[in-house]
Amino acid sequence: MTATAQQLEFLKDSIKSVPDYPKPGILFRDVTSLLEDPRAFATTIDLFIERFRDRGITKVVGTEARGFLFGAPVALGLGVGFVPVRKPGKLPRETYSETYDLEYGSDQLELHRDAIKPGDVVLVVDDLLATGGTIEATAKLIRRAGGEVKDAAFVINLFDLNGEARLNALGIDCYSLVAFPGH
Amino acid sequence: MTATAQQLEFLKDSIKSVPDYPKPGILFRDVTSLLEDPRAFATTIDLFIERFRDRGITKVVGTEARGFLFGAPVALGLGVGFVPVRKPGKLPRETYSETYDLEYGSDQLELHRDAIKPGDVVLVVDDLLATGGTIEATAKLIRRAGGEVKDAAFVINLFDLNGEARLNALGIDCYSLVAFPGH
Repeated sequence: MTATAQQLEFLKDSIKSVPDYPKPGILFRDVTSLLEDPRAFATTIDLFIERFRDRGITKVVGTEARGFLFGAPVALGLGVGFVPVRKPGKLPRETYSETYDLEYGSDQLELHRDAIKPGDVVLVVDDLLATGGTIEATAKLIRRAGGEVKDAAFVINLFDLNGEARLNALGIDCYSLVAFPGH
Repeated sequence: MTATAQQLEFLKDSIKSVPDYPKPGILFRDVTSLLEDPRAFATTIDLFIERFRDRGITKVVGTEARGFLFGAPVALGLGVGFVPVRKPGKLPRETYSETYDLEYGSDQLELHRDAIKPGDVVLVVDDLLATGGTIEATAKLIRRAGGEVKDAAFVINLFDLNGEARLNALGIDCYSLVAFPGH
């Protein structure tokens, strides 16, 4: 199954746009409305699974918290383990940690050291690609653990924030279903 | 498919126990090791889906963040929408908010007002049942929106913390796969 224009239009329509959130002038793309529509959610997951079924993926990584919603079902569909990347202090075993820049300030992400093994081929799944900062930090964590990251999948790409070019420069291909401007 | 003793023992063995986390004297039950094992994760989700397939469920609600990992696949398997309950300030549309008590202090949870409709029959899914405080707050949110909550599903029940009795008193049946002592 390759995504049809009708499927992608249907997915795009299922995403509500909320004006002035989280601050005035921002039009927020709200993926929770897609999750509420069982046909839209199932179509999204089916398209991801179909795309990555024969790519030799051995683990799916999703980032806290919305990446869990899409990454976990994709891992189940591919028949591989799911590994969470979380905010500091949430993972109980020994972790790697990476700092990344936000618009104002910085944040950290953590990965269990033993959750990715050398030789793992990892697909990173998240709801939305903006500048790519969290995915860059996630890829660094996976590579520190010895895993390979060549692919990332997103429901939404805020295409004019240039996250795709940033990730391409790190050797990561981006697959996204719906594009919106981010400005 | 009813859960067999072997399946439940296998799931229990897939959950790592981490001593002295998050503080000395606590033995933390780490569900991320279950997620990393594709057979354990798939068995968990299959058992939930089988249990609730014919109960007239119209929505699945999961609480941030680990509830997303199990709730989203269960919603897909039941063919119904998934609705997240989140920490304050994370949901962009109009919300209901409930405060609940923690060991020290309190916290809040939010639900989109339009995500649950009167007449919805809601299954709440989370990774772990301890004292039941977050699930009580979640059930209040769903009921304020007009939804019915009669069932909650958990991977782990920390049985001696008496969360099940607390939720039963609110008219909520609890289904859990693995029991550990919480003390």
